[in-house]
Amino acid sequence: MKAGAVELGHASKVTQRGVNRGMSILDLFLRIIAIIATLGSAIAMGTTNETLPFFTQFVRFRAKYSDLPTFTFFVVANAIVSAYLVLSLGMSIFHIMRSRAQASRIALIFFDAAMMALLTAGASASAAIVYLAHKGNTKTNWFPICQQYDSFCHRTSGSLVGSFIGIIFFILLVLLSALALSRR
Amino acid sequence: MKAGAVELGHASKVTQRGVNRGMSILDLFLRIIAIIATLGSAIAMGTTNETLPFFTQFVRFRAKYSDLPTFTFFVVANAIVSAYLVLSLGMSIFHIMRSRAQASRIALIFFDAAMMALLTAGASASAAIVYLAHKGNTKTNWFPICQQYDSFCHRTSGSLVGSFIGIIFFILLVLLSALALSRR
Repeated sequence: MKAGAVELGHASKVTQRGVNRGMSILDLFLRIIAIIATLGSAIAMGTTNETLPFFTQFVRFRAKYSDLPTFTFFVVANAIVSAYLVLSLGMSIFHIMRSRAQASRIALIFFDAAMMALLTAGASASAAIVYLAHKGNTKTNWFPICQQYDSFCHRTSGSLVGSFIGIIFFILLVLLSALALSRR
Repeated sequence: MKAGAVELGHASKVTQRGVNRGMSILDLFLRIIAIIATLGSAIAMGTTNETLPFFTQFVRFRAKYSDLPTFTFFVVANAIVSAYLVLSLGMSIFHIMRSRAQASRIALIFFDAAMMALLTAGASASAAIVYLAHKGNTKTNWFPICQQYDSFCHRTSGSLVGSFIGIIFFILLVLLSALALSRR
């Protein structure tokens, strides 16, 4: 009877370790997708550059992402977050091998939350500007620029997608870390 | 000897429970400050309304927060987050009494992360618009409006502060919950 109980306890421990390892592998997987998403966003925005086919003797109509400081912030934020995610892969692999690690998980959850805030800040600030570029605002006399710079607008709008995917993944990563901390 | 060890174990358990309770009380305290900050932000922005002292026969120069959709989003986001924080006080008090609760802490960490994303989105989108109102952008011909609507600009800029304080508090709340989950 006692041996059976011990065996049962051992079996449940092995199962639990398996579940923990599974969660750590999922964590690694989510991070890799988030790297692709945020890096893709940074590159898509950072290479946005449209020159209109008509020009006068003095003026060339050209739109670059760096004409709007918010878009520059977007590129920097996405680059920082993807660099952080690459570094955090090491931690994630460490957690696959050592599923009982605690202090490193707490550090990771803290930095994940901070990086999520940075990514959200960049993405939503740019979303506000993209919205303005599309719709303009009559009260403040800010006119939409998307009629002229059509491809510029499409490109900047599209590059937001990766960032917002990244935000959802960060929320899932925080949840996964919390689950892993609670199951030891 | 054995009795001593048991006593020592008991004492450390009591200490740990004390630390857990301390963290839960800190959690409650942070939430109350965050409520004040986000509710203050929502009210400060939501009551922003400036009418200029000169007007023509047909036009009255008036600026309201709802003239800019981003500011409306800011008010809504801050109101939702402060309502969530009020509801979460109940959970926080529950954790003071039951320091070993796990499932509710995991749920709380997940919703905290999601609400932090919402708050950050509102705050940084508004920050992008406030920046534009102050500096304008020559490339897109969006002129600064702060010369005319001086008090409107001050009010909207100031109301961002509470939101950003709220974001920092949310990061701390996630960290605290992670610490509480790891110490059981």
